[in-house]
Amino acid sequence: MIKKLLNKYGSPLYVYDKSILIKRCNEMIEFKNRLENNLNVDISMHYSIKANENLSLLKIIKDCGLKVDSMSELELYLSRLVGFNKDEILYVCNNITEKEMKNVHDNNILICLDSISQVETWGKNFPNTNIMVRINTGILGVGHSDKVITSGKVTKFGIAISEINELFNIIKKYNLNIIGVHEHLGSLFLNDKMDNYLEGIESFLKVVVSYFPNVEIIDLGGGFGVPYKDEDRLDLNLLCKKLTDLLKKYIKQLHLKEIKFEPGRYIVCECGKIYGIVTSIKKLNNYYIGTDIGMNDLIRPSMYDAYHKIELSPKRDTEKIIANFCGTICESSDILGKDRIVNMPKVNDNVVIYNTGAYGYSMSSNYTGRLRGAEVLLDGDKDILIRKRETIEDIINLQK
Amino acid sequence: MIKKLLNKYGSPLYVYDKSILIKRCNEMIEFKNRLENNLNVDISMHYSIKANENLSLLKIIKDCGLKVDSMSELELYLSRLVGFNKDEILYVCNNITEKEMKNVHDNNILICLDSISQVETWGKNFPNTNIMVRINTGILGVGHSDKVITSGKVTKFGIAISEINELFNIIKKYNLNIIGVHEHLGSLFLNDKMDNYLEGIESFLKVVVSYFPNVEIIDLGGGFGVPYKDEDRLDLNLLCKKLTDLLKKYIKQLHLKEIKFEPGRYIVCECGKIYGIVTSIKKLNNYYIGTDIGMNDLIRPSMYDAYHKIELSPKRDTEKIIANFCGTICESSDILGKDRIVNMPKVNDNVVIYNTGAYGYSMSSNYTGRLRGAEVLLDGDKDILIRKRETIEDIINLQK
Repeated sequence: MIKKLLNKYGSPLYVYDKSILIKRCNEMIEFKNRLENNLNVDISMHYSIKANENLSLLKIIKDCGLKVDSMSELELYLSRLVGFNKDEILYVCNNITEKEMKNVHDNNILICLDSISQVETWGKNFPNTNIMVRINTGILGVGHSDKVITSGKVTKFGIAISEINELFNIIKKYNLNIIGVHEHLGSLFLNDKMDNYLEGIESFLKVVVSYFPNVEIIDLGGGFGVPYKDEDRLDLNLLCKKLTDLLKKYIKQLHLKEIKFEPGRYIVCECGKIYGIVTSIKKLNNYYIGTDIGMNDLIRPSMYDAYHKIELSPKRDTEKIIANFCGTICESSDILGKDRIVNMPKVNDNVVIYNTGAYGYSMSSNYTGRLRGAEVLLDGDKDILIRKRETIEDIINLQK
Repeated sequence: MIKKLLNKYGSPLYVYDKSILIKRCNEMIEFKNRLENNLNVDISMHYSIKANENLSLLKIIKDCGLKVDSMSELELYLSRLVGFNKDEILYVCNNITEKEMKNVHDNNILICLDSISQVETWGKNFPNTNIMVRINTGILGVGHSDKVITSGKVTKFGIAISEINELFNIIKKYNLNIIGVHEHLGSLFLNDKMDNYLEGIESFLKVVVSYFPNVEIIDLGGGFGVPYKDEDRLDLNLLCKKLTDLLKKYIKQLHLKEIKFEPGRYIVCECGKIYGIVTSIKKLNNYYIGTDIGMNDLIRPSMYDAYHKIELSPKRDTEKIIANFCGTICESSDILGKDRIVNMPKVNDNVVIYNTGAYGYSMSSNYTGRLRGAEVLLDGDKDILIRKRETIEDIINLQK
């Protein structure tokens, strides 16, 4: 099957399994429904497009009943293109220009602003409007790498508690209405960090009660993790129960109409794989299994030292070796996986990298002149091309 | 000038100064000429396209008399497109597929292979041909980050000394001719590491004399650094003198016709800048100056903790602050520069990031739906668009 798809669409190839995507969407919807019943407040699940912006996947996510969060003009455009209504889109942005703000405003999309400075710019341009603001309570966030922890004292995100008086002055000056407040604690927590996540939420809720008791919306961000290795799955039932208990304590002091979440990775990560070809096997001090998948195709291992499961195909009954998987790029950091115990493959065997649905294609580049691979959706026994492979023409056209 | 260009071409914007590019090319040509005179062997300077593959820059580099090294089908295609002859192109690759090898072979381009396994694959397909091979002497390379040190015991690159007998067996089996050998020690050395670089070269030369005494070509790779901070410039005269002394000792035991170098960064880095807009100023624990330039536009600070000089425009006489510069991306690692002492700017001031000609656009991505900026060449008082800004259509076209 892998060989067949690579022959048909070329290598490397991003492959998505529709049934897994739908399963994860449904889990989020079930989580939403349960929490809604428990709390008697509307719950919205906004898929974070940045994890994967492919239009065909977005369409499936939409059809499952999720909303969406966008953070750029392209993401907003794509959201509208697949048919999300304006009130299903939240614009959660960071350091955007006035021009970009104008686009959000003119599209009548609710914006979540991230600094006093951005609120001032918005207010000057669009007084008498509703906004959301992102708060940084100073509580250390949770994440799989320091690079993605998005709250705490050393990140660029959010408005600090110490700035809230200044925020209120600007709000007043431009007659803005803070309709909602947001905090995002980071990325990828599993059961072992669930209590840290909840502590973060609680400190945020205390800030909401103290400073923003009249908001209609709170946005608790994303961060729901998936098991990249062999960890237990995030226990959504337990999380729902614990969140219910926690939220009940606070929302009676509020006038909420809606609680938003922004899952990204949880929804798309596990449905995606990258298929490629073993191009070389060498032994320096370690074994290195060379592949045609480079850090341009999947940057997470190089960038965050992230773990992705890798399998070889066909299964061979050869000696076991300990190997690093690497790609075509001229950098030592072009490593896909370290110290993996595998059966010795042969050149032209295939390689499968798991859990690449999130932050795979979306972070890909043309580094060292590599063209980005095609994306294919597996739907039952059908394979559907959902993004063409880049061509040399695509690269040259911009230079004509 | 900055504002004028941003108004004309949009923001962020990659800007290249033709005069600086030509200056650096000429320095490399002068280095080549001097070494050629000293050694009485042909010296070739192959520009490493991966640093920046823009066609207009490639054309200038060609016109200055440099050759080129490519490592992918796109880079090879672009090299041919701007008019490099086949014998001016060296294909220095890592873990490529048989299909890609066929393209190199059919184009009649000299290939430098990086593992026994790749030599075997080449030999099977194209017996009785000339090749180069990349050797890893096991000497630790030099580099600005572990991620780019490309020799030593823990990198994926090259054929180890312990594999040389096996290499010779394969060479014999397929009647291949090793016309040249290559080692690349890493990236970005300046004067303080010049002796480490030379030690690496010497250990390589010893290997060449012992195992490959009849090769026509040795390729010493690249690595010539540029000052990103306030370091002294690499002393090319001193380097030339020291290389002359070192090479003289060894080349009399060889039958060399040519010595190749592969400078990339040295040639294009300093001619490039990125212009952008200050979008936000905030104080959490530190000051954060938000800009519309993200890690998608320039990933080196996030990826390698690399330093790039940043200036604000206009110059203001305001209070001095210590600030982190950051972008639009939803990650804490989206930092362009840390702890910079600057005068407090205003929103809509401009920001200039220096030394982005190498590994700027070439590593850029569409992460979080950001479209890649235009590239503009400054030629005297003319500004010439040399790559159009990406449009939403460009992204969607692949999904039609």
